[in-house]
Amino acid sequence: MLLALAEAARGRGRVEPNPMVGAVVVRDGSLVSLGHHPRFGGPHAEVVALRAAGELARGASLYVTLEPCCHVGKTPPCTEAVLDAGISRVVSAMRDPFPRVAGGGFSRLADAGVAVEVGLEEAEARLLNAPYLKRLAVGRPFVTAKWAMTLDGKTACASGDSRWISGPRSRALVHELRGRMDGILVGIGTALLDDPELTARPPGPRTPARIVLDPSARLPTSSKLARTAREVPVWLAVSSGRAPADRLDALTRLGVEVLPFPGDGPIPIAALLDELGRRGLTNLLVEGGGRVLGAFLDAGEVDAVQVFVAPILEGGDHSHSPVRGLGADRMADALRLARVDSLTVDGDVALRGHLPRPWLQPGFRA
Amino acid sequence: MLLALAEAARGRGRVEPNPMVGAVVVRDGSLVSLGHHPRFGGPHAEVVALRAAGELARGASLYVTLEPCCHVGKTPPCTEAVLDAGISRVVSAMRDPFPRVAGGGFSRLADAGVAVEVGLEEAEARLLNAPYLKRLAVGRPFVTAKWAMTLDGKTACASGDSRWISGPRSRALVHELRGRMDGILVGIGTALLDDPELTARPPGPRTPARIVLDPSARLPTSSKLARTAREVPVWLAVSSGRAPADRLDALTRLGVEVLPFPGDGPIPIAALLDELGRRGLTNLLVEGGGRVLGAFLDAGEVDAVQVFVAPILEGGDHSHSPVRGLGADRMADALRLARVDSLTVDGDVALRGHLPRPWLQPGFRA
Repeated sequence: MLLALAEAARGRGRVEPNPMVGAVVVRDGSLVSLGHHPRFGGPHAEVVALRAAGELARGASLYVTLEPCCHVGKTPPCTEAVLDAGISRVVSAMRDPFPRVAGGGFSRLADAGVAVEVGLEEAEARLLNAPYLKRLAVGRPFVTAKWAMTLDGKTACASGDSRWISGPRSRALVHELRGRMDGILVGIGTALLDDPELTARPPGPRTPARIVLDPSARLPTSSKLARTAREVPVWLAVSSGRAPADRLDALTRLGVEVLPFPGDGPIPIAALLDELGRRGLTNLLVEGGGRVLGAFLDAGEVDAVQVFVAPILEGGDHSHSPVRGLGADRMADALRLARVDSLTVDGDVALRGHLPRPWLQPGFRA
Repeated sequence: MLLALAEAARGRGRVEPNPMVGAVVVRDGSLVSLGHHPRFGGPHAEVVALRAAGELARGASLYVTLEPCCHVGKTPPCTEAVLDAGISRVVSAMRDPFPRVAGGGFSRLADAGVAVEVGLEEAEARLLNAPYLKRLAVGRPFVTAKWAMTLDGKTACASGDSRWISGPRSRALVHELRGRMDGILVGIGTALLDDPELTARPPGPRTPARIVLDPSARLPTSSKLARTAREVPVWLAVSSGRAPADRLDALTRLGVEVLPFPGDGPIPIAALLDELGRRGLTNLLVEGGGRVLGAFLDAGEVDAVQVFVAPILEGGDHSHSPVRGLGADRMADALRLARVDSLTVDGDVALRGHLPRPWLQPGFRA
């Protein structure tokens, strides 16, 4: 199953909003074939593995990271392909919560006489498809919070200067990460200070929309974001009670799309994510600054973090901290990440972790 | 030489204020013997290795991490032991800047016909004995700044609560580190907030003095530090113009030793370190809080850092940051650590690094 999971991960950034799926055909304890869902609209993992196995699939076991589908979607149902191939046993990591599957795939196979086992490496499978699971559970995109900080926890000097904290290799990793996202979000503070492009350079498999939290619509028409809005989408989340109509007009004329939220306060994070979910986003990267990351954390909407710690010391009473907002009252109440991986990237340490979320629990049903 | 350096490191915490030294005898390309300086007052590395080699030392090469001594100290000169053993070639990582050696050891050997080579792995040897080199160069103890922080760079909640950030294994490592120090220093803010003991539990090879920066002598007589001052020394650095005489009397009666500094401002870091150097300290651990660590960083007196990053997110506008003070104006001016090691300790990531200092440069002479 771990092999099937690794195979599944090869579809990352290419299959969304579908889940990543991997499958392995095993016969008499020997590996027969591998397959993964390569891209949205492409063949499903089971079909790829079964085709590669050919006649050797007859009487063999199929390990698959997600329940085989039993409905006609972009492709015919996998359950029928499994039965046609003569597979005698299906071992699956987890049930597919997609409403048109949701146990129906397992039932179809069991009813046809296939031995079905569910739950092997389920926690790993849920971690792999956490973005898919979050979207199905709550209709919101999976939020990865990303920042680079110094070894003493600063993201910028008092002056706002932050170039550069992490090294070129870390920054290249960020561009790779961006290229697998559906959206990249920053606050207007960061947009004004850094005038970023928020594109993946070089481009990845996806072209993420660029989203700015900008209640008062302060994004300059001269900014790189506004000037390139016709090339790569720019969505401006504004507060209806605060954003001047003439500013919105000027930005709209440049191709910026305005997402208005009622009232004159800060953008409500949950409502924003609902809207982004409706727009089909599976993966959202939130790149800061501290106020925006704090708002996502306070809203309980950070699903994973990707942090680069650079081997530099900045100091300073007024240097910027990566995550602001309300925060926890006591250290014991701070959010503890499950599963942290660390990787040394030149001199930087890259840390990645998931926050505990209900859909990561084996057996979870929305 | 790398083997000799690893051997030398076995004396860490036991040999100070002497340097750590390791020696290896090699004959015809084969390892004959190893030795290290095991404790202050104990035999020197060369003597240990030569004794173990016996007659095999005759005509052999001696690799030694520091210049052999040529003076009578606690033990007879190593140069004579090298000559008596019949060593024909000495390869040394570096010159010993100790005034009674300072090249004299190499001269004595060369004059007696031994081939002498200097500089192999010198950068590593300087890193190993950075505390010894700093003390000889500027008369001040080597400062290791230590803190634990969350993944979002916080050392405490707005309330000051900080228990616990790092896990039990990380805290055990801190106690091990403390047991190799000559002094442990905190600010009065930390002393008031946490009422710490600042002891190594279990005890290590050294019993560090506990030092509090406390300009106004606010340390309570009821604090754990004051109440245990007769068991393990407590030194209180105060500003003469601010510390009330009755408070100093009360604390002195409990066994607290007062180190007065002129004026009524903050404790001057350089003058404090001069005093600690005069008192024979080689290694000082500065455990915070942020103001104290910032003062050391601003004074250019942080030599190394030991940071534990815990996999938790705290958030908060008013959470505490590990290093405060003036800080750098631009990110490009932030201090860059040379040589960062990272280690995963249960869920925490422990990062350790040296700051660039002149005595770490090969060839440096005070």
